[in-house]
Formats: sequence, C-alpha cells, structure tokens
Amino acid sequence: MKKLINDTGTILAEGLAGFGRAHADLVSISQEPRFVTRRVGPTKGKVALISGGGSGHEPMHAGFVGLGMLDAACPGEVFTSPTPDQMLAAAEAVDGGAGTLFIVKNYAGDVMNFEMAAEMLDGESATILTNDDVAVESSTHSQGRRGVAATVIVEKIVGAAAERGDDLATLKALGERVNAASGTMGIALSSCTVPAAGRATFDLGPDEIEIGVGIHGEPGRRRDTMKSADALVAEMFAAIQKDIAPRGDVLLMVNGMGGTPLLELYLVYEAAAKLCAKEGLTIARSLVGNYCTSLEMQGCSITLTKLDAEMMALWDAPVRTAAMHWG
Amino acid sequence: MKKLINDTGTILAEGLAGFGRAHADLVSISQEPRFVTRRVGPTKGKVALISGGGSGHEPMHAGFVGLGMLDAACPGEVFTSPTPDQMLAAAEAVDGGAGTLFIVKNYAGDVMNFEMAAEMLDGESATILTNDDVAVESSTHSQGRRGVAATVIVEKIVGAAAERGDDLATLKALGERVNAASGTMGIALSSCTVPAAGRATFDLGPDEIEIGVGIHGEPGRRRDTMKSADALVAEMFAAIQKDIAPRGDVLLMVNGMGGTPLLELYLVYEAAAKLCAKEGLTIARSLVGNYCTSLEMQGCSITLTKLDAEMMALWDAPVRTAAMHWG
Repeated sequence: MKKLINDTGTILAEGLAGFGRAHADLVSISQEPRFVTRRVGPTKGKVALISGGGSGHEPMHAGFVGLGMLDAACPGEVFTSPTPDQMLAAAEAVDGGAGTLFIVKNYAGDVMNFEMAAEMLDGESATILTNDDVAVESSTHSQGRRGVAATVIVEKIVGAAAERGDDLATLKALGERVNAASGTMGIALSSCTVPAAGRATFDLGPDEIEIGVGIHGEPGRRRDTMKSADALVAEMFAAIQKDIAPRGDVLLMVNGMGGTPLLELYLVYEAAAKLCAKEGLTIARSLVGNYCTSLEMQGCSITLTKLDAEMMALWDAPVRTAAMHWG
Repeated sequence: MKKLINDTGTILAEGLAGFGRAHADLVSISQEPRFVTRRVGPTKGKVALISGGGSGHEPMHAGFVGLGMLDAACPGEVFTSPTPDQMLAAAEAVDGGAGTLFIVKNYAGDVMNFEMAAEMLDGESATILTNDDVAVESSTHSQGRRGVAATVIVEKIVGAAAERGDDLATLKALGERVNAASGTMGIALSSCTVPAAGRATFDLGPDEIEIGVGIHGEPGRRRDTMKSADALVAEMFAAIQKDIAPRGDVLLMVNGMGGTPLLELYLVYEAAAKLCAKEGLTIARSLVGNYCTSLEMQGCSITLTKLDAEMMALWDAPVRTAAMHWG
C-alpha cells in the first residue's frame, strides 16, 4: 500500500487539520469530537443542515460546508460511520433555534447513528435519507438503495433553501423531492484500498470492471469486461432512465470516483449529453468532477436529476464552500 | 489499459466537446484547429493571455479560461505539444488590440511551437516561460527546468493584472517575477498510461516511488522506497527552500497528480504547513487540489511562491473559470 500518510491511525486528524487550515476563511474544525462547521457561528432562525459519513469520499461532505450549503459535517474514519457524539456536538455548535436537518446517505451505520443523535438532541430535528443509487436493492452496508452522488445535489439545493429561510418541514420535503427525482449509477475500473485494511477492497482483473459499483467498493450488478465509454454510458444511462423516467429539464452530473482523469470525465459527460439529446431531455444544469469519491478508485458515476424551476433557482443560488463556489 | 474512452484518436475531440458543453456559460470551443476561448469575445484594449500544452494535465489549461485568468487555451494531444496553427488561431480569436501574452511551460515542443506562432502573429506579443520545477536541470523533454504547477499561479496572478488593464511589458515582468518566486517539487507513487501508448510511461515496484518526478512521468532525482508523508514532504520542502529561499509571506500549493485522494493532499498540506511554521514562513494563501495533473498518476507536488502585497491582491481578485472560481 502506497499512500501519502504517516500512520493509519492519524490520517483523519491530520487530513482534517490540513483542510481546516487551508480553508480557515470558510470553516472551523473540532477534533474531539470531530466535526467541521462554518467559520461564522450559527444563523439565528435558520435551520441547521448537517451531513456526515465515512471519510474517503472527499470533498463530500466537509468540502460542502459553507454559505448556501451545509452548516456542519461529521467525518467518520475512512469508510466508517461517524458516531452519535460527533453529530450531537455538531448539532449543538450550529443550532440556530429553528431545528436541525440531517442529510444522511442510506447506509446502516450512518442511519443508526444519526437516529441516535436525533433522539439525544434537544430541539426539533428531521432527516433526509438519500438513496439514489439505482444499481441494486440492498447491498453490503445498506438495506434498500445506497445513497451516493445525488447527495451532493440534495445538499446544494436544500442548502440554498435553508439560506433563504425555509422551515424544517419544507426543507425535508424539498430534499426528499430532489432525492426521488434523482438516479445514479456507477462503474469501477479499479478497486481502492482502505488504509486500515492495507489491501484492495475487491479485486478486478486487468480487463475487468464492476458495473453498478457502490462508493465503498460494494458489488454492483455484475462484473464485465472493459467496454467503450459510449457502451458503458449507454448502460448506466438506461438503468437510470428506467428508474426515474426523466423528461424535460435535467441536471446531468458526471462524478469521478477519485482516480479517473478529468478529460475522461468530460468525455463521459459528452457521451451522456448525446443520449439526453436523443431522449429529448434538456440538460439545464451540469456538474462534472470529483465530488463523491471512493478514495483512489478509477471509475465514475452518472446522475440525472429531474429539475423543476424551484430546484434550478436554488441550484443557481450563491454557494461558498471549499469544493463548490459560485453565484 | 482501462480508460473511459471510445478510441485513442478521438479522446481529445470528445473530451473537449464535453468540456465546452458542460461550461457553455464560460467558454467556447473550436475543434479545427483546437482551442478554447472565453464565451464572450475579446475585450478591446486588454492584453490577451494564452496558454496551452499537451492534454492530460486537466484542469490545466482549459479549466483556467475565463474572467480574471486566461483568454484562450490550446490543448495538444495527450502529453503532446499543441501546434502553431492552434496558437495562431486562438490568438486571432481573442485579440483585443493590446498584444498577446503567451504563458508557456518549459518543454522543447511547447517552446518551439509557441515561438513559431509568435513569429507568424501580426501584432505585438510576449512570452512568459515557466520553469518552477526544482527537481532537476534539463529532462526528457526540456532544456533547463520543467514548468509545472506554479504555472497555475502565474496564470491566476497575471490574469488578474491583465483584467485591470496592465500592459504587455508589465504583465510579462509580473509573470516572470511570480515564476522566479516559485519552486515546485513532485513525487510519484504510481505511473500513468498515455492512451496512445497503451502502457505505463514508467514502472514502479510495489514499494517504490519517484522523487522529483515530472508531470509526464519524466525521471526525477532518484527512485526510493515509500516513506511517511512527513518524510516525503520534508524532502520536497527542503529542495524548494534551498532553491527559492522563501521568507515572510508564501502561497502554499499542494497539487494532486490526478489519482491521489483529496484527504491525502490535505494531510500533505498539513505536514508542509508545519514546516512553514518551523521556518518562520507565513502561509498567506493556499491552494489544495488537482490543478496540474498527470493523467491518473498517484502522487503530488508542493509549490511555494514568495508573495508580495501586489501578488496577494491579484491572487484574491475575482476569477470565473471552470476550475477556479472566487471573489
């Protein structure tokens, strides 16, 4: 295992310290318990948005803390759920008196621990569970579908709505609407290595790929041999299309798993865009890059979200985070 | 070779089409000859900034086309210099009547072709040659030092100065000042595969790394066995320090080679920040991420730039590009 680390036990502490230092204009870091908040304190009367999950998916979620998106993020160890005490401490740190909204990817450990945190929390809270991965029902770490790249889209859109002052119930309904309007499918060209494990999570032959892979290397629909980008994109696109039946305006996201060159991601985007045109879909918004990664895995996912006018306006609203910045 | 491509002959055409489509709000694409310009036409009276080089280093340079940075970028095939006709066509497309400034990384093919373009061009032009890589003197593709990640810093700072109306000679002097104030050193934990070659550019054993690697996989100072992040950062830092003798305010950039998780890049940043503190340097500005990549290579580079007040103000000035956006 070759990784830029000092000790498998201190990766998160050191990486998070670096993140906090590099983005001290945007965020503050707590190491004990571990969470990231906006640099400026809670906004009175604003619902606090908190997400979290295992590390190794950077920039998700710490990279999305800031104006117009999350109030806090709780990173667990690599591919390991954060603990309820992290979530509780984060919730208390960013409480604006209007309730707490947890955005949780559907993995058993995350769901359980965020539930415990919500129970322990004084004050109103609600949870949005993302489960956009159309590849498989239930998986290694999840009952039901896995939450993957569309979580980024949920966090952006709900974050903008929270910023304008929407209340807890409205935000929860909006987030669930965005999640339901989204479908994602991923492929892996290589495995990834969890530092504490020291060896690849799964094995792929020199010409083998995993179709429908999860973001922790969970099995997808099947193994296959390497194919052209057009063929792979067609299969991913068809799976999403069958699931969410997109029409009209869509957001097209091509997400890198961490180890795929950006040039290839744009090539995948172009292939997907051609399929959108063929199917009469209008790509109203786009996102291409490494947003919801799986350490150094090579591969990508495609996400389609059916957009309405409100979602588009919220997508365009200003955002000031380490990994997303516009408007 | 597993890559998300259709044909090694069409990667650039398809990837660039996707880039243009995904960022149609920012850029326009020409395929024949191949170049990227800002979506809005040339600004009358503004010096036009043009860069370019082999592809495979994305987001460099096309990702830096937009307000406050480049006017145009000319991508060659992967790890292959663009041709003079691309540069000439780009220069004509973005000419604002105040001259053309070429920002060129010091590789023989790039230097030769940009020189030819400058000779063919009607109107005044100047060239900034970047050569920030402190690892080795001369290399596989370069006489003298290689131009690497500090090129991004040069493009940002000179781009901001061009936006405020600085003239050609002033911009050239500024860019050369930033380049001279910068030192970079990189390491590779893995090789990368040029699609047209179909096999790894170089071979590294399971525990072997290349210290001082170039961004095309050129040899560095030596092969070594894998070490802790702290030890590797200390060696890179010392090499830069010996070269540029930093003092006072610095910009600290940790650049991913394409296949290294962001968490590790922040860990490297933290290690470098501790060395800065020890040496009495103030990290006035930071940049962490994949900016000057080598396809899917695992590894990173560290860049230090000695900053003065003018450079800091120009660094902070608004920038609106696909890969850099703030202010």
